[in-house]
Amino acid sequence: MQRAPFSALPSPAGTDARLGLLDLGHTRVETPQFMPVGTAATVRAQRTESLRPAGANLLLANTFHLAQQPGADVVAQLGGLRRFMGWDGGILTDSGGFQVFSLGENARVDEDGVTLKHPVTGRQSRLTPASAIAAQRALGSDIAMVLDHCVEATADWGTARDAMERTHRWAELALAARADASIGLFGIVQGACHADLREVSANTLVGLGFDGYAIGGLAVGETREEREAQTARVAACLPVDRPRYLMGVGTPLDLLEGVHRGVDLFDCILPTAMAQRGRAYTRTGRVELRRGVYSTVDSPLDAACACPVCVRYSRAYLRHLFVAREPLAWTLLGQHNLHFWLDLMRRIREALACGTFPALYAKERTWLDAPDLENPPVPPRRRNRKAKAAPDRASGADDEEQD
Amino acid sequence: MQRAPFSALPSPAGTDARLGLLDLGHTRVETPQFMPVGTAATVRAQRTESLRPAGANLLLANTFHLAQQPGADVVAQLGGLRRFMGWDGGILTDSGGFQVFSLGENARVDEDGVTLKHPVTGRQSRLTPASAIAAQRALGSDIAMVLDHCVEATADWGTARDAMERTHRWAELALAARADASIGLFGIVQGACHADLREVSANTLVGLGFDGYAIGGLAVGETREEREAQTARVAACLPVDRPRYLMGVGTPLDLLEGVHRGVDLFDCILPTAMAQRGRAYTRTGRVELRRGVYSTVDSPLDAACACPVCVRYSRAYLRHLFVAREPLAWTLLGQHNLHFWLDLMRRIREALACGTFPALYAKERTWLDAPDLENPPVPPRRRNRKAKAAPDRASGADDEEQD
Repeated sequence: MQRAPFSALPSPAGTDARLGLLDLGHTRVETPQFMPVGTAATVRAQRTESLRPAGANLLLANTFHLAQQPGADVVAQLGGLRRFMGWDGGILTDSGGFQVFSLGENARVDEDGVTLKHPVTGRQSRLTPASAIAAQRALGSDIAMVLDHCVEATADWGTARDAMERTHRWAELALAARADASIGLFGIVQGACHADLREVSANTLVGLGFDGYAIGGLAVGETREEREAQTARVAACLPVDRPRYLMGVGTPLDLLEGVHRGVDLFDCILPTAMAQRGRAYTRTGRVELRRGVYSTVDSPLDAACACPVCVRYSRAYLRHLFVAREPLAWTLLGQHNLHFWLDLMRRIREALACGTFPALYAKERTWLDAPDLENPPVPPRRRNRKAKAAPDRASGADDEEQD
Repeated sequence: MQRAPFSALPSPAGTDARLGLLDLGHTRVETPQFMPVGTAATVRAQRTESLRPAGANLLLANTFHLAQQPGADVVAQLGGLRRFMGWDGGILTDSGGFQVFSLGENARVDEDGVTLKHPVTGRQSRLTPASAIAAQRALGSDIAMVLDHCVEATADWGTARDAMERTHRWAELALAARADASIGLFGIVQGACHADLREVSANTLVGLGFDGYAIGGLAVGETREEREAQTARVAACLPVDRPRYLMGVGTPLDLLEGVHRGVDLFDCILPTAMAQRGRAYTRTGRVELRRGVYSTVDSPLDAACACPVCVRYSRAYLRHLFVAREPLAWTLLGQHNLHFWLDLMRRIREALACGTFPALYAKERTWLDAPDLENPPVPPRRRNRKAKAAPDRASGADDEEQD
């Protein structure tokens, strides 16, 4: 039985990009698609009902965080995540495997699973390949991820091989734990930036047979070139009739490059995390609202954008909200950024449907990678003066963890 | 010339409550009405476009805070507060007089005005009776407040008299500064809890002639009985054809009691400030979402409420958002609370229009003052255990200043 059935049109010449359809029963997800991150059953500062109009139909939620609060059993009792958060689209849950990486010293891996200490509450919890599946079923997820052992993308060959082989053993246990349940299950390809390991990992997981395949362990320390090379290498090993998901990626340019290399699904906290730092993405470059130059700008973030923020609010007002540390800034900037990400995916799908993706790719990659039109480099002295007046929050630690 | 013309129907027997209409040209405000507080040109965590559907048509903004950030001149350059924040209703601005009280040591009063030090930035600013009017005109306010000298409601007679007399001298200067400008101007009655001073203050200001009269210096330390007595005493001295505004008040019961004593306008941060502490107001009492008992409650905050929060989200989800410290909790709880406040005012106006206010007053004051049905007292031991698991944020300092 194939859960979450998927089919994709053949890629046009000159690219591995493909237009696909993922069927979750209650929701059909056109791919390529971007999943907003709703770690704690909420996309940071966004109302659930604003996500569909932005173009989202599949959200990522996090098993580790939800198991801690409010508890997978509580969510189950309340009818699952979709009902709990009032979301009528699809849900894909990460297994908690990324926390093995992101929690650092607070995560201890052994052969049977992971012991995690919550960074705030200090509460210990245990995840095994089977318990991660049980929790994701309790959450009512449409697609579960196997528990994996994620290491730095720059890990040496031996470390990467050990983690990869453990990921494979756990993947088998996850499949057994899923058994006849109707939840979709994706395997996760590991192997850091070692080409041979990536190919072994992809082939091994394909041999086990999953409903889809994720490329894990990227966007965690490697260069963009390494990321793109490993993505292409893994995608080439994966079957055409299963969705491919590049975990934790990425910037608008990363999405475009990922699609070009055959990726169908993405997730990233950037749209909402950057909103909390006052950064908006537009067709004319990034707008850093901490900059005083926007104080009196009465035009929208992006004149070409039809989102509910751009049709109503000026850069000057949004900058004011950000500088005044008003939470409405996070809501409005996050909503605009999500529109930007999701609109890029919509345009990519449209180009694939019309056979114009190679042209779109050639054009968009140039401007997405261009020096920032909105933010020309500021001479060092002026930058220092500004830094005193309004601290550069973007240089601090993440406001929102990447998990 | 009367700015912001106002007229009210005679009060029915047994109450001083009255149904009125305040004409701001672009907006007509039916009274009694509650003004949500938008200190920094935003009602905490609420989109501007959600306020009208909640029943708001007049917002309070703060001259002191806006003069600091983004600056009254900046707002003027951007077309005034209404255009700046995308609000098509009315704006009443506080003069900064309340900061004389709330900033404590950071405010220094002399005969010509106030020198204020911003509690966060440390920046000094100066307000005089005339500059406060100039700033409010620059902000594009519909109704300005005179700069007043607000002292504790418990101030002794001599202190209260000095501040009151200064307030009267400043009121004259404010009238002169307003001159022929079209902005409405309200005087502020002071006198702490001294009946003779309150009467002197009301009569003096009425003699000067304002477009409306505020009762200041209450909700700052006095008992509810004192507040109600002073409100009634002042209202009896004020002309029937000018709106009366009870500043900074209050709870739902305070609003009802204020209306009964002849007050037309109110403002208070409680709906949004309590949202940030996880408290929702309902027809069955206050819901303290930090309490574990709501973890699995799948019903809305208030089954009788038609607000966008109650039609979509459960108490369990809202509690989860609050416990997970997600800013969406502030948005959703604040929106519900604002609906609750504004719906009470709508029902009050409806009762006044139908001649049933005395019955509504008799009924509502009982349940608004009743012991909390939703939150029966918790035995001390259990309360302690809960306090460890989830700190009682309501017992800490204000999340939002009352200004």
